[in-house]
Amino acid sequence: MLEELKKEVFEANMLLPKYNLVTFTWGNVSGIDREKGLIVIKPSGVPYETMTADDMVVLDLDGNRVEGKYKPSSDTPTHIEIYKAFPNVGGVVHTHSSYATSWAQSGRDIPCYGTTHADYFYGNIPCVRCLTKEEIEDYYEKNTGILIVDSFKERGIDYEAMPGVMCKNHGPFTWGKDPHEAVHNSVVLEEVAKMAYRAETINKDITPAPQELQDKHYFRKHGANAYYGQN
Amino acid sequence: MLEELKKEVFEANMLLPKYNLVTFTWGNVSGIDREKGLIVIKPSGVPYETMTADDMVVLDLDGNRVEGKYKPSSDTPTHIEIYKAFPNVGGVVHTHSSYATSWAQSGRDIPCYGTTHADYFYGNIPCVRCLTKEEIEDYYEKNTGILIVDSFKERGIDYEAMPGVMCKNHGPFTWGKDPHEAVHNSVVLEEVAKMAYRAETINKDITPAPQELQDKHYFRKHGANAYYGQN
Amino acid sequence: MLEELKKEVFEANMLLPKYNLVTFTWGNVSGIDREKGLIVIKPSGVPYETMTADDMVVLDLDGNRVEGKYKPSSDTPTHIEIYKAFPNVGGVVHTHSSYATSWAQSGRDIPCYGTTHADYFYGNIPCVRCLTKEEIEDYYEKNTGILIVDSFKERGIDYEAMPGVMCKNHGPFTWGKDPHEAVHNSVVLEEVAKMAYRAETINKDITPAPQELQDKHYFRKHGANAYYGQN
Amino acid sequence: MLEELKKEVFEANMLLPKYNLVTFTWGNVSGIDREKGLIVIKPSGVPYETMTADDMVVLDLDGNRVEGKYKPSSDTPTHIEIYKAFPNVGGVVHTHSSYATSWAQSGRDIPCYGTTHADYFYGNIPCVRCLTKEEIEDYYEKNTGILIVDSFKERGIDYEAMPGVMCKNHGPFTWGKDPHEAVHNSVVLEEVAKMAYRAETINKDITPAPQELQDKHYFRKHGANAYYGQN
Repeated sequence: MLEELKKEVFEANMLLPKYNLVTFTWGNVSGIDREKGLIVIKPSGVPYETMTADDMVVLDLDGNRVEGKYKPSSDTPTHIEIYKAFPNVGGVVHTHSSYATSWAQSGRDIPCYGTTHADYFYGNIPCVRCLTKEEIEDYYEKNTGILIVDSFKERGIDYEAMPGVMCKNHGPFTWGKDPHEAVHNSVVLEEVAKMAYRAETINKDITPAPQELQDKHYFRKHGANAYYGQN
Repeated sequence: MLEELKKEVFEANMLLPKYNLVTFTWGNVSGIDREKGLIVIKPSGVPYETMTADDMVVLDLDGNRVEGKYKPSSDTPTHIEIYKAFPNVGGVVHTHSSYATSWAQSGRDIPCYGTTHADYFYGNIPCVRCLTKEEIEDYYEKNTGILIVDSFKERGIDYEAMPGVMCKNHGPFTWGKDPHEAVHNSVVLEEVAKMAYRAETINKDITPAPQELQDKHYFRKHGANAYYGQN
Repeated sequence: MLEELKKEVFEANMLLPKYNLVTFTWGNVSGIDREKGLIVIKPSGVPYETMTADDMVVLDLDGNRVEGKYKPSSDTPTHIEIYKAFPNVGGVVHTHSSYATSWAQSGRDIPCYGTTHADYFYGNIPCVRCLTKEEIEDYYEKNTGILIVDSFKERGIDYEAMPGVMCKNHGPFTWGKDPHEAVHNSVVLEEVAKMAYRAETINKDITPAPQELQDKHYFRKHGANAYYGQN
Repeated sequence: MLEELKKEVFEANMLLPKYNLVTFTWGNVSGIDREKGLIVIKPSGVPYETMTADDMVVLDLDGNRVEGKYKPSSDTPTHIEIYKAFPNVGGVVHTHSSYATSWAQSGRDIPCYGTTHADYFYGNIPCVRCLTKEEIEDYYEKNTGILIVDSFKERGIDYEAMPGVMCKNHGPFTWGKDPHEAVHNSVVLEEVAKMAYRAETINKDITPAPQELQDKHYFRKHGANAYYGQN
């Protein structure tokens, strides 16, 4: 079942080592079939070298395994909360990519310092707080997803204009209209995190890019008046 | 038409991923045929993996597409202003290369700390201010080019001795006598930006290289008394 | 003799250049046959390019060479002390990997800033003091091993939950149930060292991950209640 | 003539791009035949991709070209001064390798923070002052060599125990008993420069490795009582 989506999710997972976003098995990509209400995700702890499309795991939105010989990624409940709350998301990625994870460990949002950031992420990339002791002890991964969703709601952040987040002391999640775009956004997040790190080192008194520049670049690529690319 | 220049521009564009100056499609190289008054530039948002010389776009200096099935790079109006103001420029490059972009985000000129810098760029590499709200809202890319040109004029910088610039909150542009030399200068800028970053971290009280050393290295490679290389 | 273990140790040594953990010959991996009381280790100063499984050296736990045409790694006495004191260790690795060695040179423990660290190392990764003049002058390498073992005892650190250490002004050692796992832990240590370095640069007021998060991640992967991976 | 040495020097030059020590043509290796009083060096500005052993240039110790169709590296007079003053040097290397050049730009010696450094360089790696206006204007490259030699004499540094130096605002030179060992020392210098940079960032109050540890590691590999490697 879902052969096409399994292939798509498998290929998106294989992009993680290609773009140097993962060490060993520290990353996972999922995709969703909204009509059937099923998600496809990487199995837990299986090495990229030997993984095939058939190893992907199919689950329903309650986390029940519907198909697949392996256990799904341990982060599956986080992916599910994101799919449930963000209706236009078609793919979700989690990595421990080096710069984004360093920002997550530092507990700070990534300020928008330039157009590379503004082309993809509209505003500061949020770092959500660490979970409480209670949230950690039971349903840790599910609570991670709930916290992401609640934080976006509280801070009034549009998940379509901000396709990623960092979880304090943990690492980043990104999403997109499909698994491939979600990986694309992980690559951009890592690059943006790297340049923000360096820009702050170069100038201790750095300030974010002016709002009008952020608007210009974001809307040059997104929405009704976009004029970047061939569309 | 312009088959030779299209090939040259295509090959120069393909050097950007080779030298790790671009992520995805974040870069573009153009070249000019001064006699015909036509420029050749990379199409917008087309991946390097599948791009061919035939995909290059030909435009006149008013930005009208003369040949090519794709839309040109969205940065084309910036390239055009540079060609119009700097008569000996034969090729222009824009990238989001990591260290140079970090300096651009920081809003600082790159001081000349050593001979690597002085061999190619005579003086501090300028970072021009961010555009105003008005400049951003209409003709953003054209205004970026005008600002570069005006800044060089105001600061009395010779564009032939300073073949590059950073745009605040955005990224670098470089140029040269042809597209290949423009890319060469982008590689050098990235390397110089990286070493200036590190040198400042090593020594908070760092000072620029003495003017006489900058003169020596620059004129060892450029002008009537050059003695570097085989010419 | 010990053909299987020699092959395993050889292959684990060859992973060091694969994972960019060594420059030239600056690293060594050993393994132990607990029943026979023999260890197998890389020869000293032999380049990875030409090394074969037959070049591995077999020694007893007093450091006497039992088989092999080469002298063993000069760090052999350190490996031996670790094997003697830590009964469940089956493989030991020493490298000069760049970030972990930088922490060793700085003389600081690596604080646990996130889940990447907590997944593998339970608590701060210790940096043991530099040896005294007397400890250095005679039996330097053996004393290095004794210091590691004594420090773990004094600080009450469980070597199975903390499979690595840094030696001040020197570099890291890691271990595991077999040579391959010991190398795996060296890769993780380097990654964790890199991200802690960057996280401290991003936020000068950074604090370690809460204990409950460290517990969650460590015990999600280790011990009776582990649920990560396919086991 | 000197076919064997030309091959050796050519191969040593080709190691510079292999070890990522050069961008474009920014590096050169030479070797000397002490009996004949001739040196062999890379031609100036010739790309590594197309260079052959026959392109190497042969010169006498007054800098006169004895054989070769190309002009020698513009840094040749620096190499010559080193050969003239340091009788056991058989090969010299100059690069703009990134971390060592950053230290050179900062104008600081590299303190000995650990055993990686002490294994190869006995003491702080010196950074010699920038040349004066007069020294720069005439015979710049020759004066660079004279300054290196004079600085070693004044500071009482043994060139055999300290096979490298940084020139302020410029970059590093290293040497060795032959061209290959000189390149080896350039690789080590770059690695040591990188780790010292990071160690200082990790600990602002860092102190150098104790003298007895520096002695131990240096003399473990060099001199009559060496016991590292197979000799």
